[in-house]
Amino acid sequence: MTVRPLRLCVFGDSFVAGVGDPAHRGWVGRVTEHALGELPIDLTVYNLGIRRDTSSDVRARWQSEALARFPRECDNRVIMSFGVNDTTLQDGSLRVEPAETESTLAAILEDAASHGWPTLVVGPPPIADEQQNTRTAALDERLAALCQGLTVPYLHTFSHLAGATSWMREAAQRDGAHPSAQGYSDLAELVRADIAAWLGTPAESVGGRV
Amino acid sequence: MTVRPLRLCVFGDSFVAGVGDPAHRGWVGRVTEHALGELPIDLTVYNLGIRRDTSSDVRARWQSEALARFPRECDNRVIMSFGVNDTTLQDGSLRVEPAETESTLAAILEDAASHGWPTLVVGPPPIADEQQNTRTAALDERLAALCQGLTVPYLHTFSHLAGATSWMREAAQRDGAHPSAQGYSDLAELVRADIAAWLGTPAESVGGRV
Repeated sequence: MTVRPLRLCVFGDSFVAGVGDPAHRGWVGRVTEHALGELPIDLTVYNLGIRRDTSSDVRARWQSEALARFPRECDNRVIMSFGVNDTTLQDGSLRVEPAETESTLAAILEDAASHGWPTLVVGPPPIADEQQNTRTAALDERLAALCQGLTVPYLHTFSHLAGATSWMREAAQRDGAHPSAQGYSDLAELVRADIAAWLGTPAESVGGRV
Repeated sequence: MTVRPLRLCVFGDSFVAGVGDPAHRGWVGRVTEHALGELPIDLTVYNLGIRRDTSSDVRARWQSEALARFPRECDNRVIMSFGVNDTTLQDGSLRVEPAETESTLAAILEDAASHGWPTLVVGPPPIADEQQNTRTAALDERLAALCQGLTVPYLHTFSHLAGATSWMREAAQRDGAHPSAQGYSDLAELVRADIAAWLGTPAESVGGRV
């Protein structure tokens, strides 16, 4: 079996960066470790999460950062995961309105398709703030509907992590937003099979191409 | 004790990215885990290593990637580690001549100082190619001398990892360049105390500022 080279850039916020994990691995590190062990792929993953980044912040930087990491001859793919910073109140108003988050994701997906980079979206998780969680849950549905219409795979995390979970307990014990190792491990467990299946599917057969 | 926020961007090549480590951690992940456990700092580390990047490739992208990750109010710092791709032969000639690698690092350090970002350099490691290693060892000395003249901390890795080491054994068993978990663990062990001491020293007291 030929081992094909695949480069994956994961863009997003502090949850992508793994803030709070004492092992500095987060869900991206755990998903990558599993994929490296399971898939017959020469896989290289770049974690490009940034603390406090909104959808707009990601949009401003992601293409140049991806282009620096994607050789022309590789199967190059993108995961996007943002939203919690968008639903955060700052000086009494939302950092990013839901309609703008949606149009920003739509623009990102269109640009990714124009480059020929298959893209997958991981939805925003809950934090220890019920009012913000109401907004995030609504944004999660909105972004999922957008992706469904574009046949871009979308992995929900919010409903699985909300409630009496390790994610919520660790977030409340720490800074109110970021879990520790168990929360990230649970999130990784939620998404890793779908991400592995997506990585294992040839680029011409995954959704989201236009 | 006040917990001060510190952001660290680590730029470089595939050794920074941790290529070959089945745990997707590399030396940066291991050093970060230790630092998170030991230092009274709100530390966030961004791994910005890219496969095949030379010094010139890093120079072209590092400032915009750092600016996207450094909030104005934080203690923002940079680690640079490159050189092995520079000493690689491609179509019979060096990808980057040593004099150019040196002038590129000098320019990077000058730009870092102008931003007020303390910088530390980790020297290039050996690979399973003795002729290239001779070139890399010479480049290592050249870059170390440059840093010494600028009072920028420089951590040698080459001489410690060359010879009958896990690093060399794993590199030879794999693709000829990248070790596996033990090699990266050994490299992390080499540099982690010095990096922790540097991170623990207030920005105004570390070297390399102009």
